[in-house]
Amino acid sequence: MIYADNAATTKMSQAAIDKMISLNNEVWGNPSSLYGFGQKAKEILEEARKDVADVIGAEPREILFTSGGSEADNQAIRSAAELGRKNGRMHIISSAFEHHAVLHTLQRLEKEGFEVTLLDVHENGLIIPEEVEAAIRDDTCLVTIMFANNEIGTIQPIREIGAICHKHNVIFHTDAVQAIAHIPVNVIDDNIDMLSASAHKFHGPKGVGFLYAKKTIRLTNLIEGGAQERGKRAGTENVPGIAAMATALKEANEKREENAKHLTAMRDKLIAGLSAIPHSALNGDAVKRLPGNVNFCFEGIEGESLLLLLDDKGIAASSGSACTSGSLDPSHVLLAIGRVHDVAHGSLRLSIGEDTTDEDVNYMIQSVKEVVEYLRGFSPIWRDLQAGKKEYIL
Amino acid sequence: MIYADNAATTKMSQAAIDKMISLNNEVWGNPSSLYGFGQKAKEILEEARKDVADVIGAEPREILFTSGGSEADNQAIRSAAELGRKNGRMHIISSAFEHHAVLHTLQRLEKEGFEVTLLDVHENGLIIPEEVEAAIRDDTCLVTIMFANNEIGTIQPIREIGAICHKHNVIFHTDAVQAIAHIPVNVIDDNIDMLSASAHKFHGPKGVGFLYAKKTIRLTNLIEGGAQERGKRAGTENVPGIAAMATALKEANEKREENAKHLTAMRDKLIAGLSAIPHSALNGDAVKRLPGNVNFCFEGIEGESLLLLLDDKGIAASSGSACTSGSLDPSHVLLAIGRVHDVAHGSLRLSIGEDTTDEDVNYMIQSVKEVVEYLRGFSPIWRDLQAGKKEYIL
Repeated sequence: MIYADNAATTKMSQAAIDKMISLNNEVWGNPSSLYGFGQKAKEILEEARKDVADVIGAEPREILFTSGGSEADNQAIRSAAELGRKNGRMHIISSAFEHHAVLHTLQRLEKEGFEVTLLDVHENGLIIPEEVEAAIRDDTCLVTIMFANNEIGTIQPIREIGAICHKHNVIFHTDAVQAIAHIPVNVIDDNIDMLSASAHKFHGPKGVGFLYAKKTIRLTNLIEGGAQERGKRAGTENVPGIAAMATALKEANEKREENAKHLTAMRDKLIAGLSAIPHSALNGDAVKRLPGNVNFCFEGIEGESLLLLLDDKGIAASSGSACTSGSLDPSHVLLAIGRVHDVAHGSLRLSIGEDTTDEDVNYMIQSVKEVVEYLRGFSPIWRDLQAGKKEYIL
Repeated sequence: MIYADNAATTKMSQAAIDKMISLNNEVWGNPSSLYGFGQKAKEILEEARKDVADVIGAEPREILFTSGGSEADNQAIRSAAELGRKNGRMHIISSAFEHHAVLHTLQRLEKEGFEVTLLDVHENGLIIPEEVEAAIRDDTCLVTIMFANNEIGTIQPIREIGAICHKHNVIFHTDAVQAIAHIPVNVIDDNIDMLSASAHKFHGPKGVGFLYAKKTIRLTNLIEGGAQERGKRAGTENVPGIAAMATALKEANEKREENAKHLTAMRDKLIAGLSAIPHSALNGDAVKRLPGNVNFCFEGIEGESLLLLLDDKGIAASSGSACTSGSLDPSHVLLAIGRVHDVAHGSLRLSIGEDTTDEDVNYMIQSVKEVVEYLRGFSPIWRDLQAGKKEYIL
């Protein structure tokens, strides 16, 4: 199998698996317990917190462990909203192509009386900092813009957006689930107040993530209960999972530059190859994108059939976010960058990994070409396009 | 080490560890993905759901996977509250000695306008069903009473309480974190509408749990985002952890009766031995309690010192809930059953496991006796009691 869906999830690294196994076998105590065996687990938990903090330039006490990126997004946004509510500031700025963990949380807040401005995303999948500034009002309590998009991989001008937020005393949160360990992220340099991350996107375990929140921000609990995580996230800490996440993060971060170099070369070759398919188009900026992300639209085909035929050829790919698969609606991300429904339906995301080879790339290009051609062979839309009854968009 | 803190957490079973490792190595795909590798993960997820449902007499679609018991408690209570709010029923009944995941969620709801009645817990740690019935009002939307208490192990008359709730059309939720796989639990026979459970209490992994909610109950999301878990709990499913939980649950449930027999014998021997210590008392009913739970108060001593000295003797025990350790307040559970502050401070919970031997029990009895005697040797309270300046309570 050629696994080209690393944006959906990654395989755990051997070091992370080993860490998880050894803790489950040897240091499985409850870190809240007073006896030495529990305190040993507590030490491991705090080491993990320090390791995670170090990677993003935060202080250990600014790291809150969660069950994943979605929980972190929910808690970050809810916390900023609660602070806003207390100060009579109930306006939030975000973008139209955020992850649903952000968008659906914002929809809930709208029902509670918040006003949400969703910025337009331009054709290249980028947000313009000046447009963030123009949207800020006296009652804006939060700007939340994702670091890198999960579907089209575009990387936002986070540092500039953060600077604008700070100039206007607005909290800046970023969903960095796709960015962490793939591109440089530093909460100080990048002017980030809150950041969400998920372990299984960087070869850590599923069911673990973290929320960075600047120490001056008072968090609101999403999960109430025991005094774990400074009273801000209840439930016995998943120490083996958390330590495995820290192991994977350190490892991925150390290899980041080297990996990015390889991934970028593979990505660009893949983009060049797929661009040769007639009436196709890359989604999102060609340069300001994640090293491993390739996302195309092909006119006249159905994304789902494309995926199933690629699966037959041993390629695991997706049409967009895994979180919304099963839905018949076209990707809200592709619509946000101006793709029309028909075209948005024919999308393909190939998110390659460190072990993707030159041979894999050649095979993927060849396979996608064949499958697109095959599907167009009996596509009524394609027939109309060819017959001039319909106009090509791409 | 003699591990006598199984109520805080348990060691993962070998079968559960093996399951988690094999999935992390072999079937680590995203279950929302369309290709075969993702669909295989989806199948494993749904098998786990069926296995979990079977153990408690539920339907698979009634099981929602969460990050643990606290999350499940929060979501259950919030969901019932939302339904109540819509129907103008904003009264909730619970008890004074629930887990903090329940109590703190109720406190949040009180701030939002809900009224909460906390039933008294009697000296034996039991709730009287008639008192639940007497507390039900026309605007009661939820009764939430824990199946078995996490500190003193008393088992409530859940079936009777559930029947009363159903008679009055009130949703009945139970925090069954300590009960599942330790005593018989069946949601149909026991008249349960919602139930919370946590894997690491029955030799499953940390960071995984589940919420059972009868199919007629519309859940409210605690975590918004993707369409996972029928849209009711966002975030990529932790398939390796969930499957490991199902493995552990099946295993523990199969051995339940056999284990309970052994645990009950060990427990009763431990209770008899510790009762011989002067001015000591068992907390909670001697019979209606979890097979593995022993909880004592010793007059004139400090629980924390007791634990540290037992740790020196190689015994891992706790004074109560691990979730509140670090707090200087005495246990709210012990206060709820009428223990005064001084006495509540001198508590010890020994929660034994399947592998606790007769020899372990003898060693624990001997060690606790020695440590209690030693600590009383320089306790000013004990001196006053001995000198008749203060009256013994126990």
